[in-house]
Parts: sequence; structure tokens; C-alpha cells
Amino acid sequence: MIGGRHKGALVEILGDKGVVEDSAGMAGYESGARYDQGRAALVLRPQTTAEVSACVGYCVREGIPFVPQSGNTGLVSGSTPDAGGAQIVLSLDRMTRLFELDADNRSLHVDAGMRLSDINGRLARSGLFFPIDLGADPCIGGMLATNTGGSRFLRYGDVRKNTLGLKVVLADEAGTIVDLMSGLRKNNTGVDWKQLFVGTSGAFGIVTECALNLERLPRQVSTAYLVPRAGAAVMPLLRMMEERLGSYLSAFEGMSRNAIGAALDHVPSLRNPFQNGAVPDYVILAEISRSWAPRADEQPLDGVLETVLADIWEEDGAPLADAFVGPAHEMWALRHALSEGVTHAGRLVAFDLSFRRADVMAFRDWMRVELPRQFSGVDIFDFGHIGDGGVHFNLVAGKTSPADAVFEQRLRDWVYSAAVDRFGGSFSAEHGIGRKNQAYYDRYTQQKNKDLAAGLKRLTSPGNLGSVSFG
Amino acid sequence: MIGGRHKGALVEILGDKGVVEDSAGMAGYESGARYDQGRAALVLRPQTTAEVSACVGYCVREGIPFVPQSGNTGLVSGSTPDAGGAQIVLSLDRMTRLFELDADNRSLHVDAGMRLSDINGRLARSGLFFPIDLGADPCIGGMLATNTGGSRFLRYGDVRKNTLGLKVVLADEAGTIVDLMSGLRKNNTGVDWKQLFVGTSGAFGIVTECALNLERLPRQVSTAYLVPRAGAAVMPLLRMMEERLGSYLSAFEGMSRNAIGAALDHVPSLRNPFQNGAVPDYVILAEISRSWAPRADEQPLDGVLETVLADIWEEDGAPLADAFVGPAHEMWALRHALSEGVTHAGRLVAFDLSFRRADVMAFRDWMRVELPRQFSGVDIFDFGHIGDGGVHFNLVAGKTSPADAVFEQRLRDWVYSAAVDRFGGSFSAEHGIGRKNQAYYDRYTQQKNKDLAAGLKRLTSPGNLGSVSFG
Repeated sequence: MIGGRHKGALVEILGDKGVVEDSAGMAGYESGARYDQGRAALVLRPQTTAEVSACVGYCVREGIPFVPQSGNTGLVSGSTPDAGGAQIVLSLDRMTRLFELDADNRSLHVDAGMRLSDINGRLARSGLFFPIDLGADPCIGGMLATNTGGSRFLRYGDVRKNTLGLKVVLADEAGTIVDLMSGLRKNNTGVDWKQLFVGTSGAFGIVTECALNLERLPRQVSTAYLVPRAGAAVMPLLRMMEERLGSYLSAFEGMSRNAIGAALDHVPSLRNPFQNGAVPDYVILAEISRSWAPRADEQPLDGVLETVLADIWEEDGAPLADAFVGPAHEMWALRHALSEGVTHAGRLVAFDLSFRRADVMAFRDWMRVELPRQFSGVDIFDFGHIGDGGVHFNLVAGKTSPADAVFEQRLRDWVYSAAVDRFGGSFSAEHGIGRKNQAYYDRYTQQKNKDLAAGLKRLTSPGNLGSVSFG
Repeated sequence: MIGGRHKGALVEILGDKGVVEDSAGMAGYESGARYDQGRAALVLRPQTTAEVSACVGYCVREGIPFVPQSGNTGLVSGSTPDAGGAQIVLSLDRMTRLFELDADNRSLHVDAGMRLSDINGRLARSGLFFPIDLGADPCIGGMLATNTGGSRFLRYGDVRKNTLGLKVVLADEAGTIVDLMSGLRKNNTGVDWKQLFVGTSGAFGIVTECALNLERLPRQVSTAYLVPRAGAAVMPLLRMMEERLGSYLSAFEGMSRNAIGAALDHVPSLRNPFQNGAVPDYVILAEISRSWAPRADEQPLDGVLETVLADIWEEDGAPLADAFVGPAHEMWALRHALSEGVTHAGRLVAFDLSFRRADVMAFRDWMRVELPRQFSGVDIFDFGHIGDGGVHFNLVAGKTSPADAVFEQRLRDWVYSAAVDRFGGSFSAEHGIGRKNQAYYDRYTQQKNKDLAAGLKRLTSPGNLGSVSFG
């Protein structure tokens, strides 16, 4: 709870609807999508950049700590208050008014509280979309804070690559608004400040509006499940697909037998697409797509994919054990059910890692040997984005493994060390940094970078902002 | 010239070959590709990041100002010493040793002194390339410093989007080396510091090594010249091409009659491809390409382009006045000759602008009316990248216009004001900031951004580094 004086001042800025203080109203803002449960002093719900600025200035001048939150679908405790009950949540969930489409420029100016599904729903008629494909449905503010990549990174890149401009409120006494808005694609006139606010969990400022690059919606899609002959065959398979399909290739996703099994168990309506229901050890979902309507002079896309797979099949030492083209909707439904499925498989210890592309399967193969030696009763339920090196490396601790926090901590430390120290990978590929992985930021970040980050924080947002510290 | 004590110390670091002090040897480092002539106190030529660090640390401790230089092909006086003769040039032209290709990862680790043509020449056998297409042949260090985009931005993006990691030497007393090297595509573990060193002219540190994203080389290319019915038809034409060709479309370049004429005059071996040699008012060079070898089941690419152009031609109110598919090599040869051609057309006053895409032709049309009203005897020789909004807006002052510097200054001020204030464009699309456009940075940059930049400079590189000041 927070003093009546503060509440009164904030109601004056935002009106009654903009300030939530009852427990029931605040509950949804206090817990994360999957993890953690905190306590908020108050929830603020501004509707405009100017309101955000006024709230932020007030909090900084009064020394009140606050955490920005948009869709609150993150998995690293980056958008929720801690358990102390002193932090205000600054929610962007009413920042949903701006929606200015420039179809010629393929760009969109929106408020940061817009949901991804709303953005793409409203864009559908224009034939354009914001090309980040995720299982979850976050708001654009959080997508910027974590710089998500998702399943079609291979074709379209991450949020950073599709951001043309931002409006940001700094956590200083004035609640300074920095206008980095631009619909320009080429603009090299000094420091590209917007880059600092992408992927940094709101620690250096609160993004309130953005200009996004849009792409043309796929009009033709074809998907296949590919079964590699072994883990070591996955990389040659990807290279052969890239050689033959170039920019047609829009996804190359890996799914382990365990993850597929968990999804099939959890969502009974999913069809098991494999012969006799026997799920292979590892399966690739490959997608090719075109953004134009089918033309009479072109082979339909399923035929293209079948031709290319047949060609690969005939190569000496072909990396394929099996492959079949199938309905894109069904194939993606299984892929998108993996994340939810593994949460029901047992006690989940999840990792969002990335590697150089050739190391994705090398890491997996190494883990399959070493993990059982170090930790008994822990199974690997991995899936990921082989095309860009990202891996959702999920472990499920079985009933025979110790249920205590020390065991889990030891497991986390060991896996991160293997990923970062042994394989040169990243301990947070696309989930960003929050309280949940702050300790690993502290451990794996060079001191010079921490010093620079602390300096940058002083420069931009000296107030008590956000859930993490990069300094 | 610089004191014997300093020279001795620097020779100790770099050896005799690493230090140039004779006028003849320094001459090439003292003048820019097109503009300006400065004077260097000394030229240093380190071969490794460690040597750069040692030089930089020495210069900072001794208070010696210095300017980093790589290919020295820039057009804004960003890599040359000023006329004072006190600045040392730190050339990267011997930093050409590292060349580590990771073909699975489609990435390359190189020294910053490598030329673009050398990089792509050495890569050719692998079927990969660094996908920035330019008329000039810069080194990668300067490409990072300006964040060049070039002619195929539409497909591949700019240097920033294709940079996976950097190694940077900060201008502090230690010559601190910051290792931001990574071959990872997804990595969100704090501030993405490398973004600060891209597009900032070396003002915050000297990039010595980098990890680049590579793409698959085009294996099939088809090009056409399109003649729009009017300036206002260019944008509808681009949209129709994007709707029908999606990611096939790899360039959509605009060329004015004046620029084409200047190129044809300057390079007599170029063939005039237009009927009866009558160059249209404005011509689009459109390119489509595929990165895979031709397949029997696919229509050849020239046929695809012809089919699509015929389809556009048949639309009601088609934006085309003429269109013909032709040899890619010839069509690009004319396009790439424009830049050199316009320098021979008269007294050139060049602008590197960008706009939202729909404004490229709107700006041109506006200028064609307003420019003659304000400045007599000045002709427009523009060409540019309509697909990404970039325009090389070249003006040529004829014999009837005053030859004095005041006239030129007034012209510059007026054009930049129209571009930035009236059309919301950028005054430096892909040439970055140097002494030549420092005044416009000062004029068009918000004070808050300058303050942040000054703070960032103190944090990263307090030494007297570079040719520009962002603070």
C-alpha cells in the first residue's frame, strides 16, 4: 500500500480509472504468466505518453520505485513487482489508442500497450503484418523490452530489426519524453538511441509508442515434418534446405520426442501425425512461404517442397530418415502446443538458450550424455529454432530427483555453465533479463559492460525503475 | 608533425612499418575520396587489436588527437584529419589478417580493415556473401561507422542488421578492448552495446574486428527498366511489385534523366538502352533474384518478371509507361555509374537524404517546382533507393549560378530544411556524420540527445577521438 498523499496526486494525473488499489483489481498485475507472485503498492494505468511522463516524473521526484508492465506474458519476472509491496506497477494496458498505418511505407505507429494479435488482426485487411511469430500473445512494449524473435526469425529477424522508431519516457524528475519516432529506414545522423531501449527490460526508460516495419502477409504456405537421421544430420539438412530454397524458407524448427509427447498428452485434440503414432527422437518443422497469390505459371508450393525433399533424399548420405508434407495449420498447432505441453510434464526447469547454429545439436548431444551423469531423474524436453540457433532447453525433474531448491539451483548453474562457458552460447536468447535470471547476468557479464550500463542508467533514468539492474 | 619522443614511442609499439611520417607516404591518408584535404601529424598502421589498443592508450594519455580511418571512401569528411596538422590518422589498412568463416552459422569473423570486395571475393567459393551492395569499395570498419545500406537494403537490410558482433577499442587511457564478439543471432542479455558503435563515425570507439551475418549468393537474377507514367506512379508501382514478387524483389532503384545522361556522357562504353536514345524523365531499375540454382520445374526468372510486368500493365490505370527486361550486368553498370557520372556534370552539391517511401517522389516533385524559384541555374541529378526511401539528391550548379561559398551554403541550408522540416526526412541516410555535415547534426538534433551523447562519450571514450562531436 502507498500513502494517501501519493494516491491522491496520482489520481489527479490519471483520474479514478487510472489508479487501482484494491487487492482484487491488482491481483492480475502482481503475478507473472508462469512464475512468481509479487505485491504491488498500487497499479497505474495511463492512456497516453504524456500521462506516463507525469506518473514517472512524480514517482522519481517522490522516490517511489516502479515497474513497467505491458502484456505481462514474460518468463523471467521482468514485468512484475517483487514481494516487498513497495513497488508501483505502471501498466500500459490502456495504451491502445494510436494505430496509424502507412501502407506505402509498410510501417505502423502504435501505442506500446497493443497486443500482437490485435495489431495483426487489424492489419489483416491491408495484406501486411508485423512478422514476429510467437506462441504467446504479448503486447508490443514487452516484445521491445525482451527483443523477442520467435519462430520466423530466419526470414524476418527479431523485434529490433523491425523497429523503425520509439517514443520513450525516461525515469528522471521531469519524466522526460524522448522522441525517437521515425518511419525512416535509412537514417544515420548520430547515435541510434532506440537500440538502447530494445532488449533492456525497461531499465533505461519506458517505451510508450513505436513505429514498426511491416511485411507482406504470406499468401502461400507449405510445411513438412523432416526426420533427420541423427542429431549430426540436422545442420547438413538445414544447409541443403537453404541452398535449395533461399528466402522461401521461413521456419526450421526442432522438436524433441519428449516435447512432442508432452504436447500430445496435454492437448488430446492434436493428431499424432507419425506412422503408428511412433514419435521420432527429433523432428524438424520446415516451412516455406510466399507473400503473393498463386500464379498459373508457378508450381504450387507443396509441389516445390516435395521436389526439393526428393532431391535431398537422393543425395549420397542424405541426412533424412523420413519426411512428409502436411497441412500447415496442423503442423504448427503441434509446434505451438509444445511450450504449454512441457509445463504439464512435471517439475519444469526451463532455459532459453542460443548458440551458433552448428552448436544447437552438439549441445543437445553432449547434454544427453552428461546430464544423466550429473543429475539423476532429469529428462530433456527441448525444442527450438535451429534456423537462428535458439533453443528452449526444458528439463523436467522426475519424482526420483530431489524436490528441494538447492537441487534446482545446482541444476540451473550447471546447465548455464555448460551453455555459456563450454559452448559459447547465450543464457537468454529471447526472454530478456528479469529477477529470475539477474544472477546469471551478474555472473556472465564483463565488469566493463556493467560499468558502462551503470553509467548509462545514471545518464538516462536515474529513478528507481524496473525489476533488474544492469549495473 | 609530431615530437620525436612520441614518434619513438609509437615506433616501439608498431615497428617502423607501422608509423608513416613522410609527406609522400601520408598524402593518401590526408585527403578524402571526393572532398577535403587535411594534414596529418603522423599515420599509424597497427595490425592487430592489441596494437590498436596500445596506440590509442598512448594517444589518450599524451593528449594527442587522432582520427580512425579504414577505406577512406566516405563522403562526409569522417575519416580524414582536419587542416590543423595536429591529428594523428589511425589507419586500419593493415588490419586484414583475420578471416574465420563459419559456413554452418553463415557468419564471418574479420578484421575491420578488410575491403568489401576482398571479403566477397574470398567468400565466393562458399556460396555466401556479405549482402551490402555499394558503388564504392569501402572497408568494413568504415561501413560500420556509417551503417551503409546500399542498393539491396530492400532485401537484406543495412550493415547494422547484418552485424553479429564487434571488438572495439575505447579511447581511454588504457585503450580498453571491449569484446562484443558473438556469432549468436538471438542474444538478449543486457545492453546490446555493439549498436552504439554502428553508425557513429568512430566517435565512441574504434571497431577493430567484427562478426558478420552472411547470406546465400544470388544464383538467378533478372532485371528490368520500368518507366513510370509520372512521379506519382512510382509508389503504386512499387506496391504492385511487392504484392506480386514479395521477397524475390531485391532492388527497386530510381534514376533521373539527368543522372543517367551524366553517366552516359562520362562513361562512353555504356550503352544507351532507351528507344532512339531518348532517356525518360525517370527510370526504375527493378531486380528480382533467387539464391538457388535453376530448377526444371520453375519458370526462368526473366519469364517471371515478364509475366508480372504484363500483369501490372493490364491493370486499370497501370502506373507503367514502358518496361523492358534486360541484361542485369548492363543495367547495373549504368546504375553504378551514376555516382561517378554526376561528379563530372558540373559543380556538384550532393545530399544523402531519406524519407518515408511515399515521400521520395513527393519531395522530388516539390523540389522541381520550388528549387528554380529559389535558386537559378541549379539542376537536379537525383537517383536513389525508392524501396527503402533513400535518395542521393544531387544538385549541379550551372555556369549562371553564383560560384561563391555563400550561395552554396544557402542552397544546402534550404534543401536540408525542406527535407527535414517539411518532409520529416533524414539529412544523412547512409553516409553518417563527419566534419562536412556536423553543422546539420548540431542544428537538427534535439538537445536531450546531444546531452546523452556527451555523457556517453565521457563514459566510453573520453579521449580526443574522431572527426565529429555528437555532444
